[in-house]
Amino acid sequence: MIGTIAEIVAAHRSGRVRPAETVARCLSLIERQDDPAIFTTLADAGAIASALKQLEGADPANLPLYGVPFAVKDNIDVAGLPTTCACPEFAYDATRDAAAVARLRRAGAIVIGKTNLDQFATGLNGTRSPYGIPRNAMRADLVPGGSSSGSAVAVAAGLVPFALGTDTAGSGRVPAGLNNIVGLKPSLGLVSTRGVVPACRSLDCVSVFALTVADALAATRVMAAPDEADPFSRALPLAPAGSFPARAQVGVPRAQDRISFGDRLAEAAFRAAVGRMARLGATIVEIDMEPFFETARLLYEGPWVAERLAAVGGFLEARPQAFHPVVRSIIEQGRGLSAVDAFRGQYRLAELRVQAREALTGLDALMVPTMPTVFTVEQMQSEPVKFNSQLGVYTNFVNLLDMCALAVPSEIRPDGAPAGITLLAPAGRDAHLAALGGAFHADTGLSLGATGASLPAQPALAPRPAPGFFEVALFGAHLSGLPLNGEVIESGGVFVREARTTGDYRLYLLPEGRVRRPGLLRGRPGGGAAIACEIWALPAAAFGKLVAGIPGPLGVGTVHLDDGSDVKGFLMEAAAAEAARDITVFGGWRNFLADEAARRADSALASG
Amino acid sequence: MIGTIAEIVAAHRSGRVRPAETVARCLSLIERQDDPAIFTTLADAGAIASALKQLEGADPANLPLYGVPFAVKDNIDVAGLPTTCACPEFAYDATRDAAAVARLRRAGAIVIGKTNLDQFATGLNGTRSPYGIPRNAMRADLVPGGSSSGSAVAVAAGLVPFALGTDTAGSGRVPAGLNNIVGLKPSLGLVSTRGVVPACRSLDCVSVFALTVADALAATRVMAAPDEADPFSRALPLAPAGSFPARAQVGVPRAQDRISFGDRLAEAAFRAAVGRMARLGATIVEIDMEPFFETARLLYEGPWVAERLAAVGGFLEARPQAFHPVVRSIIEQGRGLSAVDAFRGQYRLAELRVQAREALTGLDALMVPTMPTVFTVEQMQSEPVKFNSQLGVYTNFVNLLDMCALAVPSEIRPDGAPAGITLLAPAGRDAHLAALGGAFHADTGLSLGATGASLPAQPALAPRPAPGFFEVALFGAHLSGLPLNGEVIESGGVFVREARTTGDYRLYLLPEGRVRRPGLLRGRPGGGAAIACEIWALPAAAFGKLVAGIPGPLGVGTVHLDDGSDVKGFLMEAAAAEAARDITVFGGWRNFLADEAARRADSALASG
Repeated sequence: MIGTIAEIVAAHRSGRVRPAETVARCLSLIERQDDPAIFTTLADAGAIASALKQLEGADPANLPLYGVPFAVKDNIDVAGLPTTCACPEFAYDATRDAAAVARLRRAGAIVIGKTNLDQFATGLNGTRSPYGIPRNAMRADLVPGGSSSGSAVAVAAGLVPFALGTDTAGSGRVPAGLNNIVGLKPSLGLVSTRGVVPACRSLDCVSVFALTVADALAATRVMAAPDEADPFSRALPLAPAGSFPARAQVGVPRAQDRISFGDRLAEAAFRAAVGRMARLGATIVEIDMEPFFETARLLYEGPWVAERLAAVGGFLEARPQAFHPVVRSIIEQGRGLSAVDAFRGQYRLAELRVQAREALTGLDALMVPTMPTVFTVEQMQSEPVKFNSQLGVYTNFVNLLDMCALAVPSEIRPDGAPAGITLLAPAGRDAHLAALGGAFHADTGLSLGATGASLPAQPALAPRPAPGFFEVALFGAHLSGLPLNGEVIESGGVFVREARTTGDYRLYLLPEGRVRRPGLLRGRPGGGAAIACEIWALPAAAFGKLVAGIPGPLGVGTVHLDDGSDVKGFLMEAAAAEAARDITVFGGWRNFLADEAARRADSALASG
Repeated sequence: MIGTIAEIVAAHRSGRVRPAETVARCLSLIERQDDPAIFTTLADAGAIASALKQLEGADPANLPLYGVPFAVKDNIDVAGLPTTCACPEFAYDATRDAAAVARLRRAGAIVIGKTNLDQFATGLNGTRSPYGIPRNAMRADLVPGGSSSGSAVAVAAGLVPFALGTDTAGSGRVPAGLNNIVGLKPSLGLVSTRGVVPACRSLDCVSVFALTVADALAATRVMAAPDEADPFSRALPLAPAGSFPARAQVGVPRAQDRISFGDRLAEAAFRAAVGRMARLGATIVEIDMEPFFETARLLYEGPWVAERLAAVGGFLEARPQAFHPVVRSIIEQGRGLSAVDAFRGQYRLAELRVQAREALTGLDALMVPTMPTVFTVEQMQSEPVKFNSQLGVYTNFVNLLDMCALAVPSEIRPDGAPAGITLLAPAGRDAHLAALGGAFHADTGLSLGATGASLPAQPALAPRPAPGFFEVALFGAHLSGLPLNGEVIESGGVFVREARTTGDYRLYLLPEGRVRRPGLLRGRPGGGAAIACEIWALPAAAFGKLVAGIPGPLGVGTVHLDDGSDVKGFLMEAAAAEAARDITVFGGWRNFLADEAARRADSALASG
């Protein structure tokens, strides 16, 4: 296998492996895979040589994807390659990279080829292409999933470390679930869709398939940027992933909303996944899924199918025979819909969004099966519309409800088919899902895709907060697991790391307040101790709210850390030190609390 | 005349006047006005008596609209009164108050009656109603403007202190402009539209007509609240209005984008208004209006007309003859539109929103004429579609672009017709527009509506920030007019008031930094001086950003003010005081700077 992004970049940076060697290995793996349905086009030798040449002279430390080969779903433009959308008569030669591809290339990644898909990204099963059906990497008789079939299989087979998909109704998640890999479907607008052939333009996302959650997030981070030329682009924060949140609340479908179409193995796999999530520390909350399911039905029974007609209606008019018959029949449904239907659908969606928002309040994520069951190619071909639509029950509603999604493997079932979960949250919480999903994936102990490789140890966390997030050092009741930590988590805070101040600070026990709190005061250089703290990243508004809510004599100022960096943190006014007990000797609030508890235990013992 | 909201509430609270007397006077004024086209229905004596009874026992100090009579446009439900939409055959008896009406009543306001409108709120001129044409309060031959014709005339004639309108394409602004009063069209979703008969449901707003900006904002503040039962409701901040911002930037249409259809008086009036705004201290920035004008054309030439059909299509099918012929012909245009048209229109709008956002960057407001010209009733009836659409060139684009708007009188033209301006800004800046518009209105010296009364002195500012805003005390370079004040304004900050600390603080001149800054430190009780500061209100995210950007040894903590209140404010770390110069004796940063300047002048004089 080719390896993960993290492994490849590390090898290139160390100088052990040259990017040209990695690319050559990638091409050789593709050749040996011997599945002509995965790629629609491979980059030619000249283009690859030129991409490698561009890396020369660049500092690998500045390029997060230095020399990393990747594949691109064939509805996304790559300059110099045709864009086919799996419709040969539609194909055109792209002259510019899609915005997402351009950002990946600027970060050092190298396009290896374009991948097969359900034609015009219309399907969730991967059988709707004149270029053939990519072979499911886990069990050859199963559909590969779609529409991003080739991208998912290429990653699962270990041919490329990551690949781009697109996702309107689940095309970035179902194939991940069916191939035992990770599929990250970012928040709408986080990644520009400029240069992507639209499916439903208001709902389309560029998505990432990767072997690990960390890799998927790393590629997403490179692509995430507002794009003035894409009117659906939005400035959304992408926080550091942080670790599994303390006191996580995870919603799951209540019993009557667990749909499997009679697949007992799928049911058992999801029950096991819920158990795993609980063991990791999450509180499980059962959710009424009806608003989500009604939204899912809106996508294909409502007006949004007209967006597909808006995208390719002219071509459909001119060349109806060029279409896959199932795809054509779906897109043609857009013809019967009126503008009144469109607005009425949007009104109903607005209502459902309110209901969904209420259902999700207080949850870190909603966890659903990625797909309710699995189908063989033979089954799918017998009922190409019905079974396809069954695949989407847990994915169709997501983009309409403006949520982000992360599909993560959960187990290999006794019949060899993969099972997976998808974590969902309102837009902007992509990194938070990665924190949950990364821990979940690591806990499964599964090998990566079909490669047999094990999940590498989680890489170190990003050292800086994302744009729009601010780091703050917490010293007291806001620390993980302490009484006010919930305020930090509820306001969107993510844990970054543990740290210590320079030796100039003194810690005091404040005499009053609803919750016992310490106060930190900087004195003369060397006149104190290194005090333990936690660094958390907060969205700007939440940070503002936190500061506004701090009771005097506490405030927020700049704290010097012993690693030489400065961070905003809680400080107290010097005037309050007189009435407070100096607890500097404990070196931190947790030690102080532990000492107190020990003394209480001792005295209970003595008196008992 | 009945008086302003502020006057009526003050009279009731002082006990000089009883609410029953005010209501009786209101009804008598309506009777004497002798224009049966203003109101479609008046509240009956029983309903009014019961509303007055509800006020008994309430503390007037707790009810911001204690005993204030108001009128309601007749497409908004008032329990116990028919809702006609100016279509007798459509009329139904409302059993519940619209959400906005309910909030006004709970605040002590009393519904006097329902007002006439262009049928189904389809029109900007006020002539499209079977209930007649309300007489323009300023010049009887002119159209009153619409669709909220009756509400605007009732306020301008001094019959009620305020009235509700609705606004989809300008119905809350054009009639204000044509009657020399204020029209506040809030941000979409700030005021619930539950209980309003939809025109274009995704674009409809409940709006306020009043004699003063302060009154319009006061009524809006009562109505503004998220409503879970209205899916288009949003949680938006409504800050205190503040005063005219220092260094305001106001956009105006560039010369070739000033549309008047040949009306020289309208052109001159707008030029004069631009001059007035500049004299008030604003920098005038000429704007390319094409993205706004293209958006305006989309509203009637694009798919949104189908929303009108979505709203009343069933009734139109059943009772086509019940419609005003012009209104019917407009709504029927929705029939020819497909869902593909609807989505394509929305795609184009998304692009235009990006362009508009760019054009508005850095501006406090965009100022346009409220209407490009005026029409007589006779003219309007000769060309009922063309002239109506001309009235909307400066209003049609506003809701599509998700902006808030404030229409303010600017002058009475030599021909006796009123001229007005409208201030526009992105959603959420309603109060900021009020700060600009209130100062502009006061500066015109115009009498209120057709009442002959003068604008009363501006009431004191609201003492507390709106939800989502935080107050912060500024002591140094962030003060109005000083080098960092721009940061505060650009981040959405609004000036609240001047204040002083308790006598416990010391002020220091910090020794370093890009900008000279003072540091505030609390010492022992009485061991300092009362230090002057300014209180500003900031949105949460901006507050967070401000705090995150403060360089040490400055931070944010709690500051005690000499009026007994506490506020967040800039403090310095005690450890930094040693190296700093104590400038407490000046009592504030401005005094210190003035002293320095005086010394420099002295020494220049001495050496000169």
